[in-house]
Amino acid sequence: MFQERYDVIVVGGGHAGAEAAAASANMGSNTLLVTMSLQTIGQMSCNPAMGGIAKGQIVREIDAIGGYSGIITDKSAIQFKMLNKSKGPAMWSPRAQNDRMRFAEEWRLALEATPNLDFYQEMVKGLLVEGNRVVGVRTSLGIDIKGKAVVLTNGTFLNGLIHIGDKQFGGGRAGERAATGITEQLTDFGFDSGRMKTGTPPRVDGRSLDYSKMIVQPGDSNPEKFSYLDTVLLKEQRDCHMTYTSPQVHDLLRDGFDRSPMFNGRIKSIGPRYCPSIEDKINRFADKDKHQIFVEPEGWHTVEVYVNGFSTSLPEDIQYKALKSVKGFEEVKFFRPGYAIEYDYFPPTQLRHTLETKLCEGLYFAGQINGTTGYEEAASQGLMAGINAHLKIHEKEPFVLKRDEAYIGVLIDDLITKGTEEPYRMFTSRAEYRTLLRQDNADLRLTPKGYKIGLAKENRLRRMEEKLNKSDAFISFFRDTSVRPEEINPILDSLDSSLVKQSDKMFKVFSRPRVTMDHMLQLDSVSDFVVENNLDREVLEQTEIQVKYSGYIKKEKNNADKLNRLENVKIPDSFDYSKLKSLSFEAREKLEFIRPVTISQASRISGVSPSDISVLLVFLGR
Amino acid sequence: MFQERYDVIVVGGGHAGAEAAAASANMGSNTLLVTMSLQTIGQMSCNPAMGGIAKGQIVREIDAIGGYSGIITDKSAIQFKMLNKSKGPAMWSPRAQNDRMRFAEEWRLALEATPNLDFYQEMVKGLLVEGNRVVGVRTSLGIDIKGKAVVLTNGTFLNGLIHIGDKQFGGGRAGERAATGITEQLTDFGFDSGRMKTGTPPRVDGRSLDYSKMIVQPGDSNPEKFSYLDTVLLKEQRDCHMTYTSPQVHDLLRDGFDRSPMFNGRIKSIGPRYCPSIEDKINRFADKDKHQIFVEPEGWHTVEVYVNGFSTSLPEDIQYKALKSVKGFEEVKFFRPGYAIEYDYFPPTQLRHTLETKLCEGLYFAGQINGTTGYEEAASQGLMAGINAHLKIHEKEPFVLKRDEAYIGVLIDDLITKGTEEPYRMFTSRAEYRTLLRQDNADLRLTPKGYKIGLAKENRLRRMEEKLNKSDAFISFFRDTSVRPEEINPILDSLDSSLVKQSDKMFKVFSRPRVTMDHMLQLDSVSDFVVENNLDREVLEQTEIQVKYSGYIKKEKNNADKLNRLENVKIPDSFDYSKLKSLSFEAREKLEFIRPVTISQASRISGVSPSDISVLLVFLGR
Repeated sequence: MFQERYDVIVVGGGHAGAEAAAASANMGSNTLLVTMSLQTIGQMSCNPAMGGIAKGQIVREIDAIGGYSGIITDKSAIQFKMLNKSKGPAMWSPRAQNDRMRFAEEWRLALEATPNLDFYQEMVKGLLVEGNRVVGVRTSLGIDIKGKAVVLTNGTFLNGLIHIGDKQFGGGRAGERAATGITEQLTDFGFDSGRMKTGTPPRVDGRSLDYSKMIVQPGDSNPEKFSYLDTVLLKEQRDCHMTYTSPQVHDLLRDGFDRSPMFNGRIKSIGPRYCPSIEDKINRFADKDKHQIFVEPEGWHTVEVYVNGFSTSLPEDIQYKALKSVKGFEEVKFFRPGYAIEYDYFPPTQLRHTLETKLCEGLYFAGQINGTTGYEEAASQGLMAGINAHLKIHEKEPFVLKRDEAYIGVLIDDLITKGTEEPYRMFTSRAEYRTLLRQDNADLRLTPKGYKIGLAKENRLRRMEEKLNKSDAFISFFRDTSVRPEEINPILDSLDSSLVKQSDKMFKVFSRPRVTMDHMLQLDSVSDFVVENNLDREVLEQTEIQVKYSGYIKKEKNNADKLNRLENVKIPDSFDYSKLKSLSFEAREKLEFIRPVTISQASRISGVSPSDISVLLVFLGR
Repeated sequence: MFQERYDVIVVGGGHAGAEAAAASANMGSNTLLVTMSLQTIGQMSCNPAMGGIAKGQIVREIDAIGGYSGIITDKSAIQFKMLNKSKGPAMWSPRAQNDRMRFAEEWRLALEATPNLDFYQEMVKGLLVEGNRVVGVRTSLGIDIKGKAVVLTNGTFLNGLIHIGDKQFGGGRAGERAATGITEQLTDFGFDSGRMKTGTPPRVDGRSLDYSKMIVQPGDSNPEKFSYLDTVLLKEQRDCHMTYTSPQVHDLLRDGFDRSPMFNGRIKSIGPRYCPSIEDKINRFADKDKHQIFVEPEGWHTVEVYVNGFSTSLPEDIQYKALKSVKGFEEVKFFRPGYAIEYDYFPPTQLRHTLETKLCEGLYFAGQINGTTGYEEAASQGLMAGINAHLKIHEKEPFVLKRDEAYIGVLIDDLITKGTEEPYRMFTSRAEYRTLLRQDNADLRLTPKGYKIGLAKENRLRRMEEKLNKSDAFISFFRDTSVRPEEINPILDSLDSSLVKQSDKMFKVFSRPRVTMDHMLQLDSVSDFVVENNLDREVLEQTEIQVKYSGYIKKEKNNADKLNRLENVKIPDSFDYSKLKSLSFEAREKLEFIRPVTISQASRISGVSPSDISVLLVFLGR
């Protein structure tokens, strides 16, 4: 049935699989997406939202490189918020609520509209391997499909086991079956695998809630969006709501602890620390007498509601009793209970920076299979795996992002260098250079790279260049133009900022703490420049950030450059660590396993000390 | 979790379950819809189309009574055709192609907007029964949900077993798991169960087809619609296409016969005779050297295509090779292969006219569980089961349609009186009074009944009455108004119809074979009447049919009335057939099992002869 040999076969149609398939197909690889159900492509398994702190930046990065997540998010958004707007621009993080059905439908249609991309619905039961090279996949019907590269994005489906109270049953998601065969084959092949756990809250009937008892959470009054392309801004939005648990709710939940698979030892694997279940929260923070619950609509029209913050695998009767005691939920009706799910993952230290496995050539992993959690983390890995699978089979240079270039770079470097014992989630704090890795400049950072590898299209590059040129020109304008005391002093006075005595460059005044672009726009010459040059909101924002944070940005860039010197000290792939007797035993073992490609990466491996690095540097002739 | 006792619990969210839930909830019963997946409510499991010969009439009937199928079909249609327009109006049958995703989404939203209707996602594993009365359901998590009535609409999920070539695996549909537990419990309870089989063709990638080699099949140039309410007419439509198999295709298919589960005995159950697999067709009609294949788009935007006429459970490599040899399919790419599925059903002679089971009070069956095939057959049973479940628990008269009132009446009477050994599909030939059971008058026949039981709403009744009054007035106009020779003769002349010599009533001229409403509208007095009375297309059509077919309609009505006299001879529920020694043994056995409620129904039982009927009539005092 499949006589053709595909360039790239992507297994799984979630966030990782969809991005992987789109990327390799868009770059020109004949690509096949194999999924257990063509009707659940782009399914949001957990909350109906994209972005958030650090995650929003990742979506912007995916978009800048030429992935689809940003576009799909914009097309299916029902609410938009720029989080952390009161903090510095490094912390600004876009987040959208989405229509769950629309999101999946837009993904499906976007993939169908992608050239070079075929689809096939069936479970993949195993890989075809020749020597240490993957050459295709085998389906549950026994069909062999040949491919030069395979990207596995199995999510929570590999031997998925669902837990609710003391009941457990196989399944990849509620109502969907688990995938079997792949883990067994890979561990036989020599891969190390483990188990992780995640969970999801109950879905309830919005008609049964009393929103008047909750706090309304509207979207931004001037909503922005994710994609740097010309997707449409939201005109209407749907509200979310917030409410709280209480000591009474906690007591009711505790009544089920003896039947909790989390506490009675049935679930042994570790769940996401920063997305804990409600029982975990009241257990770990026993002194807190309330926790937030965000009540999120599942779409424009549906009455289904997602109870964010109430993830649980307690018995369903406990879930029900406890949730009924939450303010606004007194009459709640369940659509389905929350549950926990355990699934197989493969410690990501078994991967290269390209997300290719070290053991099996041409085999790439992306998403939860690598021990991460989150749609955005999954999507970005899918994108990178798809790109690199394409590049590899076309014998081109791999596409690797550095830690000072993208959160995606931080994510992958963390995974493959440090591994992860618990579901890995991105935070701004994981990035050394977060002042550089902002949501506003992901296009400036990454679109030229995406264009160079042939993924980002011409129009995307042109838009980025226009934004860059215009903001550069605007910054020059501020550098070159003086402002007279009589013009600027009324503004400074209103801001309680010291007055100027003589004309000064606008850049200098603009750099003052409380002075914003809005203030500068009150100057005729500035507003004239904006009108004459047809500058849009994005250019204004970019200019403002570049002017006001130029000091921080420059400093961080210097730090990054310094460290990048170590990044440039390559360690040959075949480097023989056993020769270096002065390395600590632990360092030698870790270095042999991880096989870092640079001294810088070596330095981030836990157990490799500064003195080990010195030994390496001496040996490598530095 | 479910402390409330529901009035009606509906198990399953397909066409039958969705209509059942909507009906009982709309009538005022607190209703719960339990389904294995809330994301597959209203899923079209097989072809993306509604209606067709006799089936289209059923959809119109569902709509007339107050069901949703017509509205959902209109909202998600991508093409409309009135089939058999060249034949008499009794044969006219509306049919629509639908956007599969949109259809399911519209169902979900319609159900969510229905008052008194709750949702819960889980597999029902068994029924709660007290004595011979159902009192609820038990889910796979062990949750007991209490209800006064339960409607089972399990489709192909009960112990579903999927076959492709020599492979077989459990599943309710491709990619979805089977439901277990219910059959076992019911057979233990005394129910008779059997196995049936159905099948579905491959889904393919429309981008891989060469439509220039096929025959285009556009929709009607003036598309109509299903609902009598004010749903919107299609402005744009998508084309279907037609192509043919060939002797070469048949040879390729025959190569797989030894691995066919249909022919090697692995599938023992019987499939739908009038919707056979392609292997069945070439086997049964070995002299035919080609069969039609209809290439149907799956929606407005998707590239997925349904290969109507190519249902098969042959091995996937055979499916592929054979389909590739079909004109236009030379480069075909599969989305998924076709397959057959075997599932449990319960011979419907175990039901009353209300679709309540005889053995277990309060338990209703609807759809494929009763041995039927087809979305429309399922939906109409769901509607009737939902209505009757509501009426029963509110101690109201059951709602039963007679054979001269609706196809739905024919369907249910056939099922419960004659049973079925193979998947039952509706045809016009199954109806004795098909001239009465037209698609144009389902509202006139059924909306007053639907209104009386509290399902059809006021506005629906008003629309029907307006149509009735206007067409009655228009008919009277034709009866009362004369036309002069100089007016009508030019028209008659153009039709090669004999000229009139003197003024005559319009009705009489209009009754002539070739004279149509369009001709009559050429008369000023007629077109004036239309404009003055603001008559729409529906009224014109109704009037034309009533005038031109008045003879046939009257005759069939007389026949129906005569037979209805027997329909009115009731047989008491507790009637003791063993007393009637002169009944044949077979008749007594069948009568005791079926327990017909009227002499007329008794006469339709196979094995009950006219002389047995005479015996019964004599005993009942006629």
